[in-house]
Parts: sequence; C-alpha cells; structure tokens
Amino acid sequence: MDNAKYFEQARLLIEEHLDRLLPDKTISDIEDAMRYSLMSGGKRLRPLLVLAAADAVNGSGAKYLDVACGLEMIHTYSLIHDDLPAMDDDDYRRGRPTNHTVFGEAKAILAGDGLLTKAFEVMLSQKDVDMGALVETVREIAVCAGAEGMVGGQVIDMHAENNVINIERLKEMHMAKTGALFKAALRAGGRLAGADAKELQALTDYAENFGLAFQITDDILDVVGDSSEMGKSAGSDERRGKCTYVSIYSLDGARALAQQHVEEAVESLSFLGNKAKRLIYLAEKLISRNN
Amino acid sequence: MDNAKYFEQARLLIEEHLDRLLPDKTISDIEDAMRYSLMSGGKRLRPLLVLAAADAVNGSGAKYLDVACGLEMIHTYSLIHDDLPAMDDDDYRRGRPTNHTVFGEAKAILAGDGLLTKAFEVMLSQKDVDMGALVETVREIAVCAGAEGMVGGQVIDMHAENNVINIERLKEMHMAKTGALFKAALRAGGRLAGADAKELQALTDYAENFGLAFQITDDILDVVGDSSEMGKSAGSDERRGKCTYVSIYSLDGARALAQQHVEEAVESLSFLGNKAKRLIYLAEKLISRNN
Repeated sequence: MDNAKYFEQARLLIEEHLDRLLPDKTISDIEDAMRYSLMSGGKRLRPLLVLAAADAVNGSGAKYLDVACGLEMIHTYSLIHDDLPAMDDDDYRRGRPTNHTVFGEAKAILAGDGLLTKAFEVMLSQKDVDMGALVETVREIAVCAGAEGMVGGQVIDMHAENNVINIERLKEMHMAKTGALFKAALRAGGRLAGADAKELQALTDYAENFGLAFQITDDILDVVGDSSEMGKSAGSDERRGKCTYVSIYSLDGARALAQQHVEEAVESLSFLGNKAKRLIYLAEKLISRNN
Repeated sequence: MDNAKYFEQARLLIEEHLDRLLPDKTISDIEDAMRYSLMSGGKRLRPLLVLAAADAVNGSGAKYLDVACGLEMIHTYSLIHDDLPAMDDDDYRRGRPTNHTVFGEAKAILAGDGLLTKAFEVMLSQKDVDMGALVETVREIAVCAGAEGMVGGQVIDMHAENNVINIERLKEMHMAKTGALFKAALRAGGRLAGADAKELQALTDYAENFGLAFQITDDILDVVGDSSEMGKSAGSDERRGKCTYVSIYSLDGARALAQQHVEEAVESLSFLGNKAKRLIYLAEKLISRNN
C-alpha cells in the first residue's frame, strides 16, 4: 500500500475509534463540549505516530488504537485549556470558535479535565498487550504530558510572551510543550510492539528531531501561512512579541534548520530499512505542510 | 494499635510520601503552585481509605502508598479547578487563599492539570502489585474521576446553583462529585490487596454509604459549622441558593439520614469482623466531624 493510502486508512480508523470511545450521553451534558473539540478534524498526528512506530517494529500498529486515541485526547485537552481567556485567549482553532467561546469558560475547563481523565481510562483499556508494558507505556505518557513535559512547556511559553528568551530556552520549551508528546507517541507504539533497546532509542531520536522540525515549520507557517488553510490567524506570534525560530534564524535559516532535523529523523531509522517507510514519509511531509 | 494512633501514623506516611512524590524543581516554576495546594494539610481521607480498605482485606495497606497518594492528587486538582473564578469563584480553602488567588488563573489551571497528570504517573509507578490488577485499578479510578464521575458531578453542581433540583438528582450529583472518588479509593485498596468478589462488593456498599454520609455532614457543617475550624466560610450554600440535604430534610432530618448511612456502611462490612475496624471507625467519625 502506498504511504498516502496507508495514512488515509489509519486516520479513518482513528476517527472511527475516537467516535466510539466518546460517550453519547453522560450524567451531565459535558459530552457535547468534549466531542466538539475532539471531533474537529485535527491531523491526528500523535495517534498516527503510535501506529506507524509499531508498524516500524513489527507491523502490529492497528492493534494499539486505544493508546493512540488516548494521546489524541491528551493533545485535545491541552488545546482547550491553552485557548482559555486566562491563557492564550484564542477565539478560533481549526477554523472554528474555540471551546470556551461556544460553551463558556467553566465548561471548557471541565471538558478539558474530562478528556484528560478519559485519556487514561481509554489507554488502560488497551487489550491484547503485556500488562507490564502497558503500565510502563502509560506511565511514560503521563510523564511526557505533565509538569516535566507538556504542562511545563506551556508554563514556560506563558512567561516567554513579550520576553526575549535565548535559543536554548526556546528549544527546551518546545521539546517540552510539543516534543514530549511526540516522543511519548513514538515510544508507546514501539514499546507496545516489543521494540528492543536499539529500536526504542532510534524512535526516540526520530521523535526529538520530528518534534523540532514540526515546531520550526509551525513558526514558519505563522509567518507565511494562509489563515484559511491553517484555521487560525497567521501572524499571531509577531503580534504577541513571541520569540520564534523565524525571529531568531530568519525564514531561510529556519527552513534550513527544519530540513536538517527531518534528515536527522530519517537517518536515525536507517537501520530499520523498509520497515521505517511510514515514519520517513511523515517526517518528509513536515517540510511541505500547509496546516 | 488503637484507631486514633493507626490513622495518625497512616496520615504521616501519606504526608511524607506526597512530599517525596512532588518534584522540588521542574523545567518551569509550576511546582510551587502544585505544592501549595497539595501540601495544605487536608484530611487525606481518600488515601486513608485506600490503606484502610487494603488492611480490611489482608493487612497490606501501607504497600499501596503510590495509588493512595495519586488519589489525593486527583482530589486536590479538582479543588483547584472548582475554586477558579469561572467555576465557584472561591477565595479561601482550608483557611488559606485559593490557588488562583496566589498564583493567578493561568497557573492555577496548569497546576491542576499538572497534578491530575502526575496522579496517573504516580499510580502507575506502584510497585509490588500484580500488573493486571494495577491496570484495572487505575482504569477504574479514571472512570470515577471523569465525565461519568467527579467531573460530571461538578457540571451538574454548576447547573444546580439557583435551581431547585429534586432529591434524586441531588443524590446523583453527590454520588458523582464526591462519592465516585471514595468508591474508587475503597475498591482500589481492596482490589490491590486481592479482595474477592464478596469483599469488593462490601467495600463498594460501604463507599456509597460513606460518601452520602460525608456529603450530608458537609451540608450540615455549612449551616452549623465554625468558619475558622472549617477553613472556609459557613453559610455559603444558602447564599448561593444551593439545594442541600439540610434545605430538603431540615437539620434534624439530615442528621438522622447521615446516621442511617453510617449504620449501613458499617453493616455492609459486618462479615469481615475485626478486620474492618479501621473502616468502621472512619465512618463513625463522620457524624462528629467539625471540618
């Protein structure tokens, strides 16, 4: 199967599974706000990375949909909370009004809490895996999503607005805010599929380079991107006085750096040969993405 | 060991373990806000229930400190988020300014997110247990803390302010908002200690009655309690037009109902004999509590 078709099928599997996992009706009406953000057509990059990582090890990717979808729920909760008035105060996300704009602040906070909690329920419902590997996988996901990972990165990011931070701190912030969850996704797929130490390290190296290339292209898109394709307004970094890869390296410098990280991501998987083709494809697509 | 001494020692174990579990320094400075609320001297009722439940089964309570402390982190995150301006907008909690009053709204939201995430990391670090039992235990805790449990109960509670709700809905709200986490605590301790089906059911029955008695005495304290002993201002339910057990049953009726639930909680454990003495003590203490 060619790569485009593989990822289209995987994305459909993920969409269907997310839809199945979310309750249609709960004891309150919070399911509406949870569903609104979770089913708003994101790229599903984190669950796709789980599946592709497991496929790179032994072709078992489609088995791990629960863990994969849990990661998407964690990602979605973080977007809902980041968009809140007390945080980034964003009105649009993926071309639609943000969660709190539709449901109010209180519900948006609780919808985020509900999704984060649901993520752990769902991941721990994963069947047909070694229980010890599942415990270690989900524990590591929690580490990557928490104060030493995604949550910590968001705190640094808040402080960084209207402050000049140096490139080391910028990199640390991105490695935490977005990179940690990519790392969790790749290591989850790898570990559940039974990756050995060398494979797990290669997936980790890939993840770190993938995460940096993703962030750099994100900063580039904020400058050159089309608002309607991105579903959010371009130029927001500059308006907020944010330090970005473009503000530090210029556009051409940032493009070259993104290319370099993609090459390093690909290189780290070279010993896997053809098995790594899905992951290589995803990394190379980063350079040409427009949303 | 007498009951008072048993619980004093258990509480100290929990305090020390919580202190160990929280990082002194993270990549950002969010640990201050997390620590502020977690180490503010709560009753530690949920972790105590985990330990006492395991002791009622086979005396192994002190082994499960990670799971017990994870439950306290979940409880603490929920208080931080419930106190936010967009939610209950409370300025004081346990006699101290609430988290957002000290650290600002954005950090309070993130401190809550960080604690909820840390809770799962910590619970999944629990050693010396069957991995399958741990997965099922933590999965069930997530269910009880989520949209069908604690989070859902908070949503119902928000809608309930200034609305008259009937006794069935009031009970459903409390079973979810506070009862579900008590149930999770008792079943966690029981399951990890290897409880059989009959024991697990008895602990569940105890938990439901314990939770209701706890909530009813909470409503009573809001009317007759001393603000300085409670660390929050009394009379807030009436000011908010909230429907409570006291507003429905009157003070005497509510007291009788609390007593009845305590008796039912105790009764459900009768076949365990002396092994259940810690849990019986905790339930009976509810009636005379003043905070």
